Amino acid sequence: MTLILDLDNGYFCRKVLDSRSRFKAVATRRCHKPHDHGGTCNEFPFLDGFRSPYPKVAEKIERDSIMTTGAAWKSEEAGPNRILRWVMLLNDEELKKYEIDMTKLKPQVVAKLREKAADYDSCVRVAMWLAYLAYQMRDAPLPPEDIRRYLQDTFGQMTSGFTTCAVCLLPLSFNLFGEARRGKASIETCHKDPRLHSPANVGFAHRECNIAQGPKSVEEFYDWIIGIIRRARPEILR
Amino acid sequence: MTLILDLDNGYFCRKVLDSRSRFKAVATRRCHKPHDHGGTCNEFPFLDGFRSPYPKVAEKIERDSIMTTGAAWKSEEAGPNRILRWVMLLNDEELKKYEIDMTKLKPQVVAKLREKAADYDSCVRVAMWLAYLAYQMRDAPLPPEDIRRYLQDTFGQMTSGFTTCAVCLLPLSFNLFGEARRGKASIETCHKDPRLHSPANVGFAHRECNIAQGPKSVEEFYDWIIGIIRRARPEILR
Repeated sequence: MTLILDLDNGYFCRKVLDSRSRFKAVATRRCHKPHDHGGTCNEFPFLDGFRSPYPKVAEKIERDSIMTTGAAWKSEEAGPNRILRWVMLLNDEELKKYEIDMTKLKPQVVAKLREKAADYDSCVRVAMWLAYLAYQMRDAPLPPEDIRRYLQDTFGQMTSGFTTCAVCLLPLSFNLFGEARRGKASIETCHKDPRLHSPANVGFAHRECNIAQGPKSVEEFYDWIIGIIRRARPEILR
Repeated sequence: MTLILDLDNGYFCRKVLDSRSRFKAVATRRCHKPHDHGGTCNEFPFLDGFRSPYPKVAEKIERDSIMTTGAAWKSEEAGPNRILRWVMLLNDEELKKYEIDMTKLKPQVVAKLREKAADYDSCVRVAMWLAYLAYQMRDAPLPPEDIRRYLQDTFGQMTSGFTTCAVCLLPLSFNLFGEARRGKASIETCHKDPRLHSPANVGFAHRECNIAQGPKSVEEFYDWIIGIIRRARPEILR
């Protein structure tokens, strides 16, 4: 059973936010403070506890939740390197209005971009979930009281050390957000099934684990490595 | 027990080849035809069976045997993207004579280049071994008779289908040399221990396997994935 969090369940404000984005007609971006909040609306209030002193963690969660990853570079052939996931729900004809010509991209780039398409509400749910996971990492800062309550109201009791790598299942330390090897962050957002952008399917993973998983789902990855062990070290399997 | 093939064992010609390389003072390149050959000397005669109609296989074996892999790009910071492995045996001072300034490169780039250093004879042995493995892949062309004899004299009886991926241990098809996904070849040269360039340590691997192995040795990779299975699917282990 998969429970999908209904963002219109009365808990969240959901007031429409002003937008100057050229994509504003594609999706209506909304406030996700509690419905009875006073003051300014805020799309991702649950990230505010990270914005200082961990602005990169807040930026990473927001970016990975709402943007596709494309090629590391941007070019005519490789396509845009980051684009809003819900924009990738538009068909080729509609995308042309935004000067995105999918027919100019290599088929594998198109496939990769389309695979990462997700509607706006799914992206918001993923952002909330990643914030919830980040606070439950070893060595994580304690959330401000209002954010703790907000995330627990949404996803349930939080426990320090609960968050493990989605691939290798070892506990993840919040300190990994600050580490980088060979210029690459040590922690990545991971999709257990690369084609699904939902809280149940998204987590954090060590960079090396995410690389080893490759385009496989985590379950396919486990099946694959069991096959390898069956040949390389058969004596340890039942 | 590791047997190291002695290239001066009398089987090979070993006549010094003319060279116009700027690195010719670093290593003496030699002929590896049988000692009693008539005609022109040849450094890699065992690759000639591939040169037509599989020139890319011959080029790949030669390149991976004698050149380092560096960054995919060449720059002041990333260093040369391919350089002769034996040149990387020179110290920083000697390298400056060749306008290679290791102090300008990032430490991780230096480490990666130095890790790939190997003497000339080791590189030739690896090239021979890779040719021997390639001919024993599923769907491989049959070697010309003189090359079959040459490789069998050197490494022993050849068997079609003998060559497996050095990581996942599944049989490799020669056809994978011609395949590419997302612009990347499907088969890669693989070092079971990334720091050793010798026949016993070098083989071919699926690209996905080589990527999953990462900077680990194959044995470390097996230990690592056993740990993952122990957490993800404990019931299948003894």
